[in-house]
Amino acid sequence: MPERTSYPFLKGHGTHNDFVLLPDHDGRVHGDLPAERVQALCDRRGGIGGDGVLRVVRALSGRGAEWFMDYRNADGSISEMCGNGVRVFGRHLVEEGLADPTQPLPVDTRDGLKVLTFAGGAVDGDVTVDMGVPQVLGESKVGVGERWWTAAHVDTGNPHAVAFVDDLADAGALTSPPEHDASVYPNGVNVEFVVRRAPQHVAMRVHERGSGETQSCGTGACAVAVATATVDGAERGTPYRVDLPGGTLTITWREDGHVLMAGPALIVARGTTDL
Amino acid sequence: MPERTSYPFLKGHGTHNDFVLLPDHDGRVHGDLPAERVQALCDRRGGIGGDGVLRVVRALSGRGAEWFMDYRNADGSISEMCGNGVRVFGRHLVEEGLADPTQPLPVDTRDGLKVLTFAGGAVDGDVTVDMGVPQVLGESKVGVGERWWTAAHVDTGNPHAVAFVDDLADAGALTSPPEHDASVYPNGVNVEFVVRRAPQHVAMRVHERGSGETQSCGTGACAVAVATATVDGAERGTPYRVDLPGGTLTITWREDGHVLMAGPALIVARGTTDL
Repeated sequence: MPERTSYPFLKGHGTHNDFVLLPDHDGRVHGDLPAERVQALCDRRGGIGGDGVLRVVRALSGRGAEWFMDYRNADGSISEMCGNGVRVFGRHLVEEGLADPTQPLPVDTRDGLKVLTFAGGAVDGDVTVDMGVPQVLGESKVGVGERWWTAAHVDTGNPHAVAFVDDLADAGALTSPPEHDASVYPNGVNVEFVVRRAPQHVAMRVHERGSGETQSCGTGACAVAVATATVDGAERGTPYRVDLPGGTLTITWREDGHVLMAGPALIVARGTTDL
Repeated sequence: MPERTSYPFLKGHGTHNDFVLLPDHDGRVHGDLPAERVQALCDRRGGIGGDGVLRVVRALSGRGAEWFMDYRNADGSISEMCGNGVRVFGRHLVEEGLADPTQPLPVDTRDGLKVLTFAGGAVDGDVTVDMGVPQVLGESKVGVGERWWTAAHVDTGNPHAVAFVDDLADAGALTSPPEHDASVYPNGVNVEFVVRRAPQHVAMRVHERGSGETQSCGTGACAVAVATATVDGAERGTPYRVDLPGGTLTITWREDGHVLMAGPALIVARGTTDL
């Protein structure tokens, strides 16, 4: 056989945003984690498959977290943060006994510390992550084909345009990016289409810049809840249920301005690979 | 944690036709393997991901093979055979020391015994599988949009229409099944579009009925080689190189009418899951 080195991996997902996890506590297994390895791991047919890689390393920043989430996109590029990913990251630490689910868990990321809490302190309930303070920045417009909608401009670390529609099918196949105002969104925009299901309950589709339509987008769900609560004039602290194609998240815009996102996180497989 | 039972799995592929393998030698782990479990395993975001499942069980047919390949499609339905899958199945047996790569290896399938050989008896070279005797059944036509091509009708256990085109792009996006003659193909047809690259060397795209365009189709590659060798009037036993989007296969139509397909087979990960 060719000389190859096996290393451990896990696979998990949050609302069907899925990841290959690479335990590398002391950074000795993967070094600087070459883009080629990330691409090979995320290849859905030639590899294990995932939207990205979560490398699990000890934090060295001195910001007070024991663990650092080294997140990579499927193409191998570095990314600051991933709301679905950090929940899966936390679930893994708890399952392995590396974190205490009865206590808030700070996780270091390139976007700073993110604090996780585990529902009832349990290891299989929803995981909540503090997604920070969003900015509500007025209105813009988005279009698909001949149709245009007014959209709320919300920044949750990345830019969003939230459009309320009569029916989620109105956005069509979403095979190309919706039209948007480049003067408002010079770096592109993630576009959410939203319908109401019940009081404090909406459903959405999302087109992510660079990725197309996806099953789930954590920052997009936060933007949708913030836009909806703003329209509703809802009291701060009111939880909103947001149904995405890949699952359900519960978003709470707190009195202090922080948005909390709660949702499932699952590890579905563990093993070794030599990719 | 909820009560769940972990069981072993592997993931592998042949020319990017990918599979979850389930070792279940005595049939005690998975019983009759419910469709729901197959679907969960093959789910590319919620599960491990694959085009199908290869359950590895001891053969009970008395046909002379020690191992039976219990193949399931990703939707959980039963399928007779899979040419790329059986190579991966054989690779797994050899890697685990369950088969001797220096000897021909009979594998029992619902389509009867398939005999594998391993290049140079090695555990990392091409795997060759005897795909049986194809039937060359004359000509038909296939169409995409406004364009129509003459197609060779070849049956390799399933029906194929092989069309020679000037450029593989001529078939367009292949987002819907090509037009075909329902009187010739009452159960639908797999359509191959082929260009020549060099003598005894072609490249192809394939639209599989029920699956759409795929990275690789073993029986389709065999049909293409048979159709090309027929046009060429090639001497039996001449190897044809067939490039597919997912990799390269070498197909040899032997003097005795049998078609041999040689190609790569890789196991890329192994571990446990509780899906």
